[in-house]
Amino acid sequence: MAHNYLVMNEGNIKRIKLVIEYDGTNYHGFQVQNNAHTVQAELGQAILKLTGERVSVISAGRTDAGVHALGQVVVFSTSSTIPVDKWKPALNSVLPRDIRVLQSSTVDENFHPRFSAIKKTYRYIIYRQEEGAVFYRNYAWINAEKLNIEEMRKAAHFILGRHDFRSFCSSGSAVKNFERTVTRLDIEEKKPFLILEIEADGFLYNMVRIIVGTLVEVGKGTYSSEYVKEIIESKDRNKAGATAPPQGLYLVKVEYL
Amino acid sequence: MAHNYLVMNEGNIKRIKLVIEYDGTNYHGFQVQNNAHTVQAELGQAILKLTGERVSVISAGRTDAGVHALGQVVVFSTSSTIPVDKWKPALNSVLPRDIRVLQSSTVDENFHPRFSAIKKTYRYIIYRQEEGAVFYRNYAWINAEKLNIEEMRKAAHFILGRHDFRSFCSSGSAVKNFERTVTRLDIEEKKPFLILEIEADGFLYNMVRIIVGTLVEVGKGTYSSEYVKEIIESKDRNKAGATAPPQGLYLVKVEYL
Repeated sequence: MAHNYLVMNEGNIKRIKLVIEYDGTNYHGFQVQNNAHTVQAELGQAILKLTGERVSVISAGRTDAGVHALGQVVVFSTSSTIPVDKWKPALNSVLPRDIRVLQSSTVDENFHPRFSAIKKTYRYIIYRQEEGAVFYRNYAWINAEKLNIEEMRKAAHFILGRHDFRSFCSSGSAVKNFERTVTRLDIEEKKPFLILEIEADGFLYNMVRIIVGTLVEVGKGTYSSEYVKEIIESKDRNKAGATAPPQGLYLVKVEYL
Repeated sequence: MAHNYLVMNEGNIKRIKLVIEYDGTNYHGFQVQNNAHTVQAELGQAILKLTGERVSVISAGRTDAGVHALGQVVVFSTSSTIPVDKWKPALNSVLPRDIRVLQSSTVDENFHPRFSAIKKTYRYIIYRQEEGAVFYRNYAWINAEKLNIEEMRKAAHFILGRHDFRSFCSSGSAVKNFERTVTRLDIEEKKPFLILEIEADGFLYNMVRIIVGTLVEVGKGTYSSEYVKEIIESKDRNKAGATAPPQGLYLVKVEYL
């Protein structure tokens, strides 16, 4: 009976959530683009190899070219009979070595990795010396300039809380609401690294990298820490610092209710 | 006067010593081979670009494919008028980003980076967890097996001192004297890393990697720590553990009188 067959098939469709990490160095970002090597395309290829299905893999955040992830969340729907706990070893056996599945689970059909997220954490790493820089050129911003960390921390304080972050958003974004709530912005010195970690309910396009670029200007003394308050109030991207390079940025985790 | 001219030219030949670091991931080792991408070839190309001279660049140690250097020492002779302190910025402006010159100086014509060396230090890094492994796949041995570090330290003790290290030498080496003196072998746990550092008056081919492979077998319990003494005495490569992978190995420094 056709009807029954369809119902059974419907019942067999599972929504799989993966937590993945990747080295973004060799990718043109997460999202599929024409002919570009992307993380999304690799995941699609791996699932196709395992199941014969062409699925659409959606993510919690589209990382840009060169940006890394320690805990990206992606979701896809499948009618494959692969048990949920086997997705991790199965995918890792066919994925390239710079993308690894850390966890797999089933989620509700309404779960959306981006819209269901309540909090995201990004890390930004600056490598502050010349020696050893060859090993971090793809994994940190190599910047040996003298920085006043205390001033950077004071400036970071102004970023905390709910603000219109238009000054920290690159053009090319389609969003209309620029309000976001930053709940944490830590700056930790772990020589030779400076590690910034920022947590918010959501991020605008290039927001973390522009915040980092701005805080580094404060560290160098180009801006006073108080000037960051003015930058926010101006709602003018041109007032903020340059966008820090992609290779220092890591999507650390995405949290859900 | 031809004689004078020759003498002057002779007098202008300088022997330049460089301390360099490189990420060995994309190289087929240090030494030039037919059509292979090597560190030596890149250095030769860079010097040719700057001076128009084809020089022979010799190193303190030929690192294998995938092996890294934090303080490799190389030497070449040149009649270029580039001042000694300008070699570093000049070479760095033309070298690829995964090779950097850290220091340049002039040395005596009798200085040889390998034969004049009195001590070398190598580091070997093991990354002992699954999470984050994508970022270390080219820079450490990814090995999440349970290891008994105390047993490894006991075994390391037998390696210290002057021994015939034939059991820790890969075939293909042309040396006749297998005696070397290991003056330090530290094993430091810095979670999630295990860092081995070994210092000797010289090393045989693959000696560090075979020592690491053997110590890991001790850590896993395959060998007792005392068995390492037997391995040394046997002078038999087959008794020792497997050669640990190249990407965990770093030439840290080379010392001279």
